[in-house]
Amino acid sequence: MYRLGIDLGGTNIAVAVVDEKYNIVGRAKVKTDAHRPADQICDSIAEASKAAVKAAGLKMEDIASAGIGTPGSVIPSEGIVTYANNFTGFNNLPLCAMLKERLGIDIYIDNDANAAAYGEYLAGAGVGTNDFIAVTLGTGVGGGVIIGGKMLLGSNFAGGELGHTVLHMDGEPCTCGRKGCFEAYASATALIKQTKRAMDENKDSLMWKLAEKSGKVNGRTAFDAMRQGDKAGTEVVNNYCRFVAEGVCNIMNIFQPDLLCIGGGISNEKENLTDPVNELVRRDIYTRHTETKDRVCAAKLGNDAGIIGAAFLDKLYK
Amino acid sequence: MYRLGIDLGGTNIAVAVVDEKYNIVGRAKVKTDAHRPADQICDSIAEASKAAVKAAGLKMEDIASAGIGTPGSVIPSEGIVTYANNFTGFNNLPLCAMLKERLGIDIYIDNDANAAAYGEYLAGAGVGTNDFIAVTLGTGVGGGVIIGGKMLLGSNFAGGELGHTVLHMDGEPCTCGRKGCFEAYASATALIKQTKRAMDENKDSLMWKLAEKSGKVNGRTAFDAMRQGDKAGTEVVNNYCRFVAEGVCNIMNIFQPDLLCIGGGISNEKENLTDPVNELVRRDIYTRHTETKDRVCAAKLGNDAGIIGAAFLDKLYK
Repeated sequence: MYRLGIDLGGTNIAVAVVDEKYNIVGRAKVKTDAHRPADQICDSIAEASKAAVKAAGLKMEDIASAGIGTPGSVIPSEGIVTYANNFTGFNNLPLCAMLKERLGIDIYIDNDANAAAYGEYLAGAGVGTNDFIAVTLGTGVGGGVIIGGKMLLGSNFAGGELGHTVLHMDGEPCTCGRKGCFEAYASATALIKQTKRAMDENKDSLMWKLAEKSGKVNGRTAFDAMRQGDKAGTEVVNNYCRFVAEGVCNIMNIFQPDLLCIGGGISNEKENLTDPVNELVRRDIYTRHTETKDRVCAAKLGNDAGIIGAAFLDKLYK
Repeated sequence: MYRLGIDLGGTNIAVAVVDEKYNIVGRAKVKTDAHRPADQICDSIAEASKAAVKAAGLKMEDIASAGIGTPGSVIPSEGIVTYANNFTGFNNLPLCAMLKERLGIDIYIDNDANAAAYGEYLAGAGVGTNDFIAVTLGTGVGGGVIIGGKMLLGSNFAGGELGHTVLHMDGEPCTCGRKGCFEAYASATALIKQTKRAMDENKDSLMWKLAEKSGKVNGRTAFDAMRQGDKAGTEVVNNYCRFVAEGVCNIMNIFQPDLLCIGGGISNEKENLTDPVNELVRRDIYTRHTETKDRVCAAKLGNDAGIIGAAFLDKLYK
């Protein structure tokens, strides 16, 4: 039995055929061209889906169902994207029905953060857990919360916005309109801002040379500088890890999951990120006196998490 | 069919017989004397239970089961209090088994915050909801989170510590050891601290007279002063409501419940608390563009929430 997993991104539509053991057996990718009408985007999704099935050496009849992880807000039970700000015409869009028409199979949907969390839960960092949380540190801070194998959706399907919890009242402005959100301190965007600020204050820091070499300041600049012993870079990383840890510790105190995994580009730093975060969480968590092991780890599946999770959304919403 | 609800407090043990429509039909109360051995406290719980049954004009045979809401941490499925810092000997205490021995009926258990949340969910502010949260502003800030009718426990039964989420990094010290927790800004204890601070800075404030009249500064001092037009008192209340709203908004963004109710002594202020909190939450919540009604309200059952919720714990854990 095979499933299709569809990762609908602002730039690319990535589709893969996934077998029952979560192996990807065929892939395809097309440009999203997000400015186009929803109908045309849907055509492209269908096209990529068929290409992925072909790449797997299979036929559409071999595919049991498909799942989509999409940006924006979603009502999984109705197969509708209520709103996605980076797509035109994604207002109460019956995306599942539109795609079922094109592919002839049942389609399931959730937002991309939830799909990625579910992928890690099933086949990555979260294997063997019951309560599992994935926090993605990217342009923003996204989250997916799985409790007893079920996705936390909230009464209006808008729950799990872990990035939009204030960590520092009246602090850094956030894209959501509030001030001081976790996202405004712990996203890759925030790290880059923190790096640039430190560079302005430390004209002799190695970060200048590293940024020049890679053409720009990015989420690795401070980490790379730290690895080469740069003082200002080390300080940026230390502060950043503290921000991440404070937010993670809040989430741990609320949910007390078996495991919390950190994904997104910055999670490629692996232990350089998770070791200091675990140390700070162990120090601060409400249950510190009974903690026996680290409960924060890096994501394992990278970009495939969203595809694999999407493929298996039928397990959540069938 | 009748149930017993037991609210085990640091000062009193309050027990009531509750009918199937959540009416209390008999009550009893005894002193806890929390310094005593667990055995003796258990004897007192049994004694109060029998007295409540008698007060209801019933016999023990008429009681289907009993539930206890206790301070501390609990494993409901095992009927064990793992730890309660204000009781001696409450370390992995098999309280349900001990009480079953004395009363001859099945006993269920959860912590007091969860029991109170469940009471409000069943018979108070949360009637008709599916996802419901109760936040208690008392000595500390407690919370109970109900998702789809089930209690959020966490993998280690220590979840739901909504009060121990940092709202203001490096801010006010919290009893939990961290700095800047929601509890350190929004508990009654914090409000009293904020009131005293404002009084020190405003020697001519009406709060001085009000505190003298009631013998001490309490959670009502600033609210009472506000009602009489006192400027410093009004400012204390405004700031306090902002702290509450920031924490509540964080919780709303994470869980997006149908309703969040605020309990504890300060919730007696009703609209004076919930109106400004709702206004701020409506302004700041992630879903502000689709909010159609206020989702924050005051608790309805007062101290009975814990008793009624405890009585019905069999619905959660049987």
